[in-house]
Amino acid sequence: MSRTAAVLVIGNEILSGKVREANALAVAVALRPLGIALRRVVVIPDDVDAIAAEVNALRATHDFVFTSGGVGPTHDDVTVAGIARGLGRAVVRSAEVEGKLRSHYGARLTEGHLRMADVVDGTELWAGASPDWPTMVLGNVFVLPGVPEIFAYKLAGLVPRLRGGDAPFVLRSVECRADEGHLAPLLDAVVAAFPDVAVGSYPGWGSEPRVRITFDGLDATRVGAALTAFESSLPPDWIVASD
Amino acid sequence: MSRTAAVLVIGNEILSGKVREANALAVAVALRPLGIALRRVVVIPDDVDAIAAEVNALRATHDFVFTSGGVGPTHDDVTVAGIARGLGRAVVRSAEVEGKLRSHYGARLTEGHLRMADVVDGTELWAGASPDWPTMVLGNVFVLPGVPEIFAYKLAGLVPRLRGGDAPFVLRSVECRADEGHLAPLLDAVVAAFPDVAVGSYPGWGSEPRVRITFDGLDATRVGAALTAFESSLPPDWIVASD
Repeated sequence: MSRTAAVLVIGNEILSGKVREANALAVAVALRPLGIALRRVVVIPDDVDAIAAEVNALRATHDFVFTSGGVGPTHDDVTVAGIARGLGRAVVRSAEVEGKLRSHYGARLTEGHLRMADVVDGTELWAGASPDWPTMVLGNVFVLPGVPEIFAYKLAGLVPRLRGGDAPFVLRSVECRADEGHLAPLLDAVVAAFPDVAVGSYPGWGSEPRVRITFDGLDATRVGAALTAFESSLPPDWIVASD
Repeated sequence: MSRTAAVLVIGNEILSGKVREANALAVAVALRPLGIALRRVVVIPDDVDAIAAEVNALRATHDFVFTSGGVGPTHDDVTVAGIARGLGRAVVRSAEVEGKLRSHYGARLTEGHLRMADVVDGTELWAGASPDWPTMVLGNVFVLPGVPEIFAYKLAGLVPRLRGGDAPFVLRSVECRADEGHLAPLLDAVVAAFPDVAVGSYPGWGSEPRVRITFDGLDATRVGAALTAFESSLPPDWIVASD
């Protein structure tokens, strides 16, 4: 079994349709080369109890949990309070973060800024690629901001820590000129022959039927063999392209 | 309290980063004018037990549940099986859907196509705007396909059914030239004065600090008053634009 991960997106702005969620996809893409399978994404409001319950549920059932959002200095930034409640720990002011904030903001520093130094008791500060803005880590929970550019930057900084020597996931695919009703029995055959390869079927949307068939797995040889076996079962003029 | 909704996205393609999820946002946007609050989005794999558990959890805690994906004819389309397991019901072939499939596909019809006529026992078929392709409804659970164009079309067809006479959500916002650390105490004041208005603070990402402050609620007068009160508390040159 591969290592698993979950993403917890905390944000009224996502649920009210003001902002398009982007960070779960970034995690999915970043984890593939590490051989870590993203298994669950949950989006919840800015609510301390909801965060507490969900962090506890996800950290108990996944190897890694990435939270997105709710870590700024304003009233709607309640991720630290939520995780603290979930873990049954206090929120404490980090002298290390306070020092970084003071040196960054200088004379412009307000009490508002200092709220960003409030962390869950026992938080590890992971410097990664951004020693000035370390990432909060609580065991297997990584606390990331919601702004996509910063999320992506901090996620990239976590990659060396997440690398575990696992093989990367491999993806191959073939685009077919057919509809799923015709492909279904051929798919059943390749699924039965390659239980270790995840086979997906994704219809397009257009004037003529097109379906993308994907083959995913940790063993590149088996993934390639599944693709080849499936292609051999197709009438050649059904194949538009493969990679 | 407003009526609530959840979205359950079923799809390995989302979790493996092959496809960008788009349907949760469509639900969020569609429900706002109906005064229905989207409270939770969950993305899970194509797994019958996971679907069963999650559908049961969501339908018990929300007024409406929209599932996205997994309703085609191929091996990875297990949403109907998952909901059936959750509800403790059988999967049965719908004569009505079978008739529609036979008339649509004619001589090209295969057993693969007919799998799309397999429904959870007791399914209501909601014709809405697409009588040829009715939407499966199980109590408060609406079963929609994952292809975004079809999802959006079927969702639009559900709107008349979801309309309940509630006031629409109202959104106002102001873009500020400031950082969140400076805005935090001013936000605390408006949040305290307008407990019935949801106030959000969303920093931008660029060379100078910009924050979008949003005001959401069901009472347009109160939402407008909160915006005005907050703007009055700002130094005028901090306001970039408001709407």
